[in-house]
Amino acid sequence: MRVFVVFAHPEARSFGHALLHRGRAALEQAGHEVVVSDLYADGFQPVARAGDFRDRRFPDALHYDREQKFNLGRGGLADDIVAELERVRWCELLILQFPLWWFSMPAMLKGWVDRVFVNGAAYGSGRRYDTGGFRGRKAMVCITTAADPAMVSPRGLLGDLEVILWPIHNGTLAYAGFDVLAPYVGHSVAWVDDTERARILDGYEHHLAGIETRSPMFFHPLADFGSDWTLRHGIAPGTVGQRARLGP
Amino acid sequence: MRVFVVFAHPEARSFGHALLHRGRAALEQAGHEVVVSDLYADGFQPVARAGDFRDRRFPDALHYDREQKFNLGRGGLADDIVAELERVRWCELLILQFPLWWFSMPAMLKGWVDRVFVNGAAYGSGRRYDTGGFRGRKAMVCITTAADPAMVSPRGLLGDLEVILWPIHNGTLAYAGFDVLAPYVGHSVAWVDDTERARILDGYEHHLAGIETRSPMFFHPLADFGSDWTLRHGIAPGTVGQRARLGP
Repeated sequence: MRVFVVFAHPEARSFGHALLHRGRAALEQAGHEVVVSDLYADGFQPVARAGDFRDRRFPDALHYDREQKFNLGRGGLADDIVAELERVRWCELLILQFPLWWFSMPAMLKGWVDRVFVNGAAYGSGRRYDTGGFRGRKAMVCITTAADPAMVSPRGLLGDLEVILWPIHNGTLAYAGFDVLAPYVGHSVAWVDDTERARILDGYEHHLAGIETRSPMFFHPLADFGSDWTLRHGIAPGTVGQRARLGP
Repeated sequence: MRVFVVFAHPEARSFGHALLHRGRAALEQAGHEVVVSDLYADGFQPVARAGDFRDRRFPDALHYDREQKFNLGRGGLADDIVAELERVRWCELLILQFPLWWFSMPAMLKGWVDRVFVNGAAYGSGRRYDTGGFRGRKAMVCITTAADPAMVSPRGLLGDLEVILWPIHNGTLAYAGFDVLAPYVGHSVAWVDDTERARILDGYEHHLAGIETRSPMFFHPLADFGSDWTLRHGIAPGTVGQRARLGP
């Protein structure tokens, strides 16, 4: 497979970097081709702004998503956006690797999504989920945390990891058409000993073995929803996001 | 109340800006004092990085959260972080206002959280949730979306808004000790007519009336969790994050 890893960590001597290199080596050894965007090392600019567009359909006020679509069609997107978008389109597997900060991506990576998941390419004109612009590709999150596994379990202090990752898994990757593979999580990496760190590195290699045939997580296809944008009568909620509300 | 609004939108002539001004006027008219950080207008730098620290406890490799704590204690944090942190400490109500991008904050605001919710001030040494560093303060999210209300309902296409906002409500605001008030949501603002936009502006004013006595959303206090970091036996899950896992 062609694998594109987008990596966001401020420190080149971090455990996250060790995990990046271990994963890259494992993928290459298995015959996959790997390209990495190391956003901090590359000095990626993560702020979505008017300067991202050479041309403007609405010069009076910035409608960021509309200008994405307009400029995509006429070659007017900033060069760094075009380069990253080309890598996404080139790949068969996208891996987003980052430390979980405030239950989410570091701003550096969030800005990569804001700018690179361009309206008209990632989604648009009704295309999303199983009709999303990046359909036919797989995607996976690889995170390091400061939490132990029980904390992010369903009854855990921080809440279920599936709920924590819903905006990324469902709202970003599945929305844009990717088949989302189960995440790899290195728990509590700043607080464990070297033996446990070695186990996390080994576990990532194991997680990546046979990744090309792994079944994706379930997200509802567009056809499960009626014209009122809710699950059709008789369709049981199959995710943490589409569910019966708790309590009264 | 002393109200601190952190606002992230790239366009000064946006509906989001109109909502900001309407909210500010309503709060001031009710006798509250309002301070706004307009992150785009201020040119806020949202990337957490080594340059945020004048001194380093671990010079060989950047441990961002550890350096936050170390530099907080010796006056070594970057000036913009100190200024924002002072505003958070000053306020009695924090409002985060932003357009919902990819089910989350724009990178500009996520970076504000990454940098300003400093280890040692917002949390740390076991302080979190009801013992979090910003306890005694209220917080609220005000968002604009490109979705209609049914889409973000429990059986909706994008999933329940409570699940979408879990990383912000629980993982950021409640974690840091805030009492979290129900969000205000301006739905589908780019796609509705002027009458509906006026209704959204009026609705925000209504939402803010009496905000100082509004009851907060429920999040489990630390005491609900045992030493294994999961809900104690007999405590029923009261949130979307702490819950029984769905089917196999």
